[in-house]
Amino acid sequence: MPPLLRLALPKGRMTEEVVKLLTASGLEVKSNGRAYRPLVSDSEIEAKFLKAQNIPRLLEIGAHDCGFTGHDWIEESGARVEEILDTGLDPVTLVAAAPERLVEGLERLGRPILVASEFERLTRRYMESRRQPYLFLRTFGATEVYPPEDADLILDLVATGMTLRENRLTVVAEILASSTRFVAARAALDDPWKAVKIEALRTVVQAVLEARRRVLIEMNVVADRLLSVVALLPAMKAPTIQELHGGGYAVKAAVPRAGLAATVLLLRKAGATDLLASALEKVFP
Amino acid sequence: MPPLLRLALPKGRMTEEVVKLLTASGLEVKSNGRAYRPLVSDSEIEAKFLKAQNIPRLLEIGAHDCGFTGHDWIEESGARVEEILDTGLDPVTLVAAAPERLVEGLERLGRPILVASEFERLTRRYMESRRQPYLFLRTFGATEVYPPEDADLILDLVATGMTLRENRLTVVAEILASSTRFVAARAALDDPWKAVKIEALRTVVQAVLEARRRVLIEMNVVADRLLSVVALLPAMKAPTIQELHGGGYAVKAAVPRAGLAATVLLLRKAGATDLLASALEKVFP
Amino acid sequence: MPPLLRLALPKGRMTEEVVKLLTASGLEVKSNGRAYRPLVSDSEIEAKFLKAQNIPRLLEIGAHDCGFTGHDWIEESGARVEEILDTGLDPVTLVAAAPERLVEGLERLGRPILVASEFERLTRRYMESRRQPYLFLRTFGATEVYPPEDADLILDLVATGMTLRENRLTVVAEILASSTRFVAARAALDDPWKAVKIEALRTVVQAVLEARRRVLIEMNVVADRLLSVVALLPAMKAPTIQELHGGGYAVKAAVPRAGLAATVLLLRKAGATDLLASALEKVFP
Amino acid sequence: MPPLLRLALPKGRMTEEVVKLLTASGLEVKSNGRAYRPLVSDSEIEAKFLKAQNIPRLLEIGAHDCGFTGHDWIEESGARVEEILDTGLDPVTLVAAAPERLVEGLERLGRPILVASEFERLTRRYMESRRQPYLFLRTFGATEVYPPEDADLILDLVATGMTLRENRLTVVAEILASSTRFVAARAALDDPWKAVKIEALRTVVQAVLEARRRVLIEMNVVADRLLSVVALLPAMKAPTIQELHGGGYAVKAAVPRAGLAATVLLLRKAGATDLLASALEKVFP
Amino acid sequence: MPPLLRLALPKGRMTEEVVKLLTASGLEVKSNGRAYRPLVSDSEIEAKFLKAQNIPRLLEIGAHDCGFTGHDWIEESGARVEEILDTGLDPVTLVAAAPERLVEGLERLGRPILVASEFERLTRRYMESRRQPYLFLRTFGATEVYPPEDADLILDLVATGMTLRENRLTVVAEILASSTRFVAARAALDDPWKAVKIEALRTVVQAVLEARRRVLIEMNVVADRLLSVVALLPAMKAPTIQELHGGGYAVKAAVPRAGLAATVLLLRKAGATDLLASALEKVFP
Amino acid sequence: MPPLLRLALPKGRMTEEVVKLLTASGLEVKSNGRAYRPLVSDSEIEAKFLKAQNIPRLLEIGAHDCGFTGHDWIEESGARVEEILDTGLDPVTLVAAAPERLVEGLERLGRPILVASEFERLTRRYMESRRQPYLFLRTFGATEVYPPEDADLILDLVATGMTLRENRLTVVAEILASSTRFVAARAALDDPWKAVKIEALRTVVQAVLEARRRVLIEMNVVADRLLSVVALLPAMKAPTIQELHGGGYAVKAAVPRAGLAATVLLLRKAGATDLLASALEKVFP
Repeated sequence: MPPLLRLALPKGRMTEEVVKLLTASGLEVKSNGRAYRPLVSDSEIEAKFLKAQNIPRLLEIGAHDCGFTGHDWIEESGARVEEILDTGLDPVTLVAAAPERLVEGLERLGRPILVASEFERLTRRYMESRRQPYLFLRTFGATEVYPPEDADLILDLVATGMTLRENRLTVVAEILASSTRFVAARAALDDPWKAVKIEALRTVVQAVLEARRRVLIEMNVVADRLLSVVALLPAMKAPTIQELHGGGYAVKAAVPRAGLAATVLLLRKAGATDLLASALEKVFP
Repeated sequence: MPPLLRLALPKGRMTEEVVKLLTASGLEVKSNGRAYRPLVSDSEIEAKFLKAQNIPRLLEIGAHDCGFTGHDWIEESGARVEEILDTGLDPVTLVAAAPERLVEGLERLGRPILVASEFERLTRRYMESRRQPYLFLRTFGATEVYPPEDADLILDLVATGMTLRENRLTVVAEILASSTRFVAARAALDDPWKAVKIEALRTVVQAVLEARRRVLIEMNVVADRLLSVVALLPAMKAPTIQELHGGGYAVKAAVPRAGLAATVLLLRKAGATDLLASALEKVFP
Repeated sequence: MPPLLRLALPKGRMTEEVVKLLTASGLEVKSNGRAYRPLVSDSEIEAKFLKAQNIPRLLEIGAHDCGFTGHDWIEESGARVEEILDTGLDPVTLVAAAPERLVEGLERLGRPILVASEFERLTRRYMESRRQPYLFLRTFGATEVYPPEDADLILDLVATGMTLRENRLTVVAEILASSTRFVAARAALDDPWKAVKIEALRTVVQAVLEARRRVLIEMNVVADRLLSVVALLPAMKAPTIQELHGGGYAVKAAVPRAGLAATVLLLRKAGATDLLASALEKVFP
Repeated sequence: MPPLLRLALPKGRMTEEVVKLLTASGLEVKSNGRAYRPLVSDSEIEAKFLKAQNIPRLLEIGAHDCGFTGHDWIEESGARVEEILDTGLDPVTLVAAAPERLVEGLERLGRPILVASEFERLTRRYMESRRQPYLFLRTFGATEVYPPEDADLILDLVATGMTLRENRLTVVAEILASSTRFVAARAALDDPWKAVKIEALRTVVQAVLEARRRVLIEMNVVADRLLSVVALLPAMKAPTIQELHGGGYAVKAAVPRAGLAATVLLLRKAGATDLLASALEKVFP
Repeated sequence: MPPLLRLALPKGRMTEEVVKLLTASGLEVKSNGRAYRPLVSDSEIEAKFLKAQNIPRLLEIGAHDCGFTGHDWIEESGARVEEILDTGLDPVTLVAAAPERLVEGLERLGRPILVASEFERLTRRYMESRRQPYLFLRTFGATEVYPPEDADLILDLVATGMTLRENRLTVVAEILASSTRFVAARAALDDPWKAVKIEALRTVVQAVLEARRRVLIEMNVVADRLLSVVALLPAMKAPTIQELHGGGYAVKAAVPRAGLAATVLLLRKAGATDLLASALEKVFP
Repeated sequence: MPPLLRLALPKGRMTEEVVKLLTASGLEVKSNGRAYRPLVSDSEIEAKFLKAQNIPRLLEIGAHDCGFTGHDWIEESGARVEEILDTGLDPVTLVAAAPERLVEGLERLGRPILVASEFERLTRRYMESRRQPYLFLRTFGATEVYPPEDADLILDLVATGMTLRENRLTVVAEILASSTRFVAARAALDDPWKAVKIEALRTVVQAVLEARRRVLIEMNVVADRLLSVVALLPAMKAPTIQELHGGGYAVKAAVPRAGLAATVLLLRKAGATDLLASALEKVFP
């Protein structure tokens, strides 16, 4: 039997972005009627969808070789695994939050605080730092609806803050910033074949993430404006400059998407003409 | 402020049947854009949708007065609450199951058994009775997809057994039979106003459940066949018999739905004519 | 060509309840791929779905003979048509509402109030009673999202008040209570064939509405408890009392659904046994 | 192994009505994730969903014992099976239709007519009766879109005629009236256990169909109006008449739904009071 | 508080194309559970979804700074706002249409024409030009279903003409050609910060629209075919020509998508080889 | 009337990929409420959706000029048409399969084999090669559910094999490999205008398919590593090499997607820097 890389994919909130990222990286992930065991386009890789919560632990015990999951669940699990790439996708913050009108009085309840969360370990660590008696209630999604009758305080993930606001909850403390991470089991990194396979996947995934942040711009410049145009191009990489048949230069550079409009307006003012922008698929730094 | 009965409704698998049951009992439960706090038609009742898992505990600590949840979660939680009616709805069995080809060898794995379940307490109780070293993995739904790589044994709920079969799992032990229960907090039963309110709800809910099992049949019988017709009617309640203007009798009884066709064929043979069957809405025993 | 009754049905919020009501009344209304001209089961009736807004006016000019629409749109249109039945369905109130923090200062804006509504006529009538300069903005649904930047005040329909609360709006005045009405064109009521047809439809629709409010209860009573049982039955109609073969009485009455549980508990205490409740389909008063 | 009745259910247009009919008859049919093998509530019956087209043939060769399918497919297949009940559900007519502007010229095309249909056998039989050369094209649904380029004439099922009209097709001939039939295999009728089982099912199904056509009305009448009231009740069954405690009569009859409003108006005029109408579930004639 | 550009986005038919256009322009618009106030990726811009009908007026009174809406509603409103870019998206024509069989007789009805439309101002302007008495009926969508009983003539938007044809309506006059426009409030254009912000957005949006019409083709040419190849390239921009290492030239040009296949076939015939076509993201002219 | 190319598009499994392919080729296909006659962006082409089964035959008799359909249905129909491009899309294999436990005993059934398939002609051809008596049952989709009671053997299309496995069927023989083909009617290829039009469509479609298999990579190389870098580039086409202003070379090549990660790693090791990968839209070989 040929060697296999066992890849754990998160089921839920993170699924869509991870599948898009892998597809862009050349690894197609297709459901085939069996939701949990998708078909993947690389016959040396076997993927399985699992709850993000369980992935750190299952990597630690060697049930899978690598996977994607949130930094939050890695911390919650306490599992010893290697985070080898922060994709920056699905950024969230774990916060402690309480009903607006209770925030002031939390320390004077006169009874143990009722704290609800999906994160037991992180909650206990936080509550111990507060040095206040508490009762812990494990939730299973939708933690924001527990207050006020079913919880005095919650530890919950926040993306835009809209859900907290709609439930009239106020942030009391920020506990942990999280996003989707590419994670490997230590045993897998010790296996030469798997380590190479994981590194190849990491390289392509990173190239895709880098390409999303950039756009390729091409322009023509007459000779005496070349220096002032090139001076405007972001410094990270030398732009590619070629002489044109008939005089002048073609200049090409992968510039950051952020601020593109401003960059273009400056380049035109400096003498660049025929400006074209194209999407990049992968950028290998 | 008038007194309020705080009713906890289960979010998930049990929701549909419980809402139908309450609606039939005269308590309409309508979502109003806010999934978790439905409008109910009785202004003395305030309902909230919560995970079935959390309901027993939240009743015990007094956050709600009564509710519907599964017997399984009551047992798992260990919460001291009163089951005041078994609705018989959504019947399931908690079983221990293992991959077909592993069943024989579970005791000779040569390493701790990896057991996955949503039910930690019930799993630990069961595993201790097996007297075998094990590692527990808490799951969050879809436990049946953990084996074989992510679990050797699971404790999972089974309704028809189809899901187990599709995942090639075999039942190793039946742990607990469960169904949806109407449950009350002890504190609520000690409050006279709440106790009466809960009992009224229990009475109507039970009358609806009873009505579902029965059908009202009416028929005409000439005088000399009355005895043989009445003899065929199930014994639990005396049928209602009235003389008809012009002779003969009208006989009416609420008979069980099960076996209705057979009952009707026998009644016709015994001399009943003009047989009509109608649905009942509530039967107060 | 045989005579036809042209029935206008409201497209939108009121559709579902009106179609259910007509179906229960024996007039099936089935879409057939053409959303606006449904098939109806009575070949003497031709139905068309129209915006509730347009129905009063189209009845007035004789384009249709009768229909269902809201009292709000009848008032808004000022059309001279006859409301012949208040179904009580889809009850709403037209209110004036303003952003919470603006309510106090509405009269000291120092500029004309910007008022947004789907109801131009009713808004102008209300604003003139306020004697304050205003600018009117006609909306087309979702009026509640106009404040604060696009309106200072709105006139909008309110069912549960939840939408206002979520948009942090406060009711400033209640303008009009509305519900779905069965309406007829005056010309149609002057045509004998149409008048009879409309009256027949009104009778059955009313019988269905009445049946929804009641439930048929049947019980057995021994002779000496008959009076005390009958005394408990709501007074509007004499209950039907029949002697049973073998002694005792069967008592039957159509009682209001509201308070059914309490009624049943009293009846049992008074001596009624074998209580059955069944749904009614139509009650002709 | 206990004996089993193998029931074939039609997949497609007829499914919904057949499942509703069986459920009303006390045989619940529930999908369980496996679309083609539903769970049924009678353990002596095994159901399978199959294309209506294949059911007649599969009954003939003994793969199933009984089933529901259209009369059209029974005729098309030429299979020797017994139609034991016409449910009247999903009534359709098989018609021959041609494009409006071609109808006149069909016989002067100067080339073979191109005829498209799902029904090969019935089409060939019809075309031979026309004595015109033709080319047959078997279609697989949506036959109405073949003309004009892909067919000159089609044989297709028509329910309301709307689809033909939208495709500007005109009916040239009506070939066959069809509806959903309860059908049995001859071999099954020769097996005593299966024959009894099939007959029981047929009896209950027929009782449900009969109950849908009727409504139970109850009314009170004073003694001297009894005759004129009873005279108005449809003649098929004697109404049930009982003396009331305190004088007068209670009259009850299962009358046809069609014309109910008119019947009620006449009964009231004749002296009936307290008229109630209730739905029936089954009527055993 | 930092300055904010208040952007009004059309809710409805135009939404999808406008959101796609903005996303391609680097301004992500994401719903966040609150349908009317989407999150946008530029913290200096605040967006709100509003009915296209209301946008011109709300820009005029200064409730928003710029937005997207149809030319039709700008004309209907009579609002004084600046159309600064015609995106060409969602092209429609406002037409007057009447039932096929009524077209001839519209002027001889012998009574006022009943005209229905969502566009009151444009309808009145048109009807006055016809110099015929009329009655105006404001519609709220689905105007095409009003004729024949509820309107003799309609003024409605037409995209493909299919809806008119299906309702057997004939175009009587074309009133106005419309498409989605980028519009600014005059007050905003007078504010220097806002004017710059709006111009930057206009520039990028226009670059995206231009890029959609073009494709970047690259090819190799041997020296003596260079002139004939270049002669075939559309004249608007000089192509970029570079010498290849080892002889020959690389030629690159952004050519129109329309007619691409024909262009390519000619280029190959003229001596171009290794032809590649790539999508462009933005073209700054 | 200008000439028209009549294009038949397959309705069903193949639809999505074919429409995407045509859109990418510059021929937009838009539904417009009429599912069967989409709007296409080339006014010289008229498209119609038809069942893939019927397309070969309808091309043969001249009802359409060209189209897309599966190789399987071309073979099944026996129609004389020209396959002018194998798109490779939707690859499937027609196999003969039997229930796992019946495979061995198929030749010893003691009665004719019951064979079910949508493909009558291919089934008969195969069964005759087996020289065994059989009964043929034409199916209409979902053939895999016929065994075991309704078929002993099926001929069915297989994509991943998952469906067979779930129904516990084993492949007995592979009959035909199929995929979506671009097909032309012979008569159309004999018409000069149509032949040119078809060839142009084939060229662009093929260029899109080729572009999907490749990715454009660009990199910079210093002079003395040029040869070793170029040597690594797949041989099919010479890469485009240009001198950079300031020394070194820019190298560009359209390399296969398959194995991209490995290629990139080797190129970097050989001295390539600033590697960018971009998608191609069309590659004209």
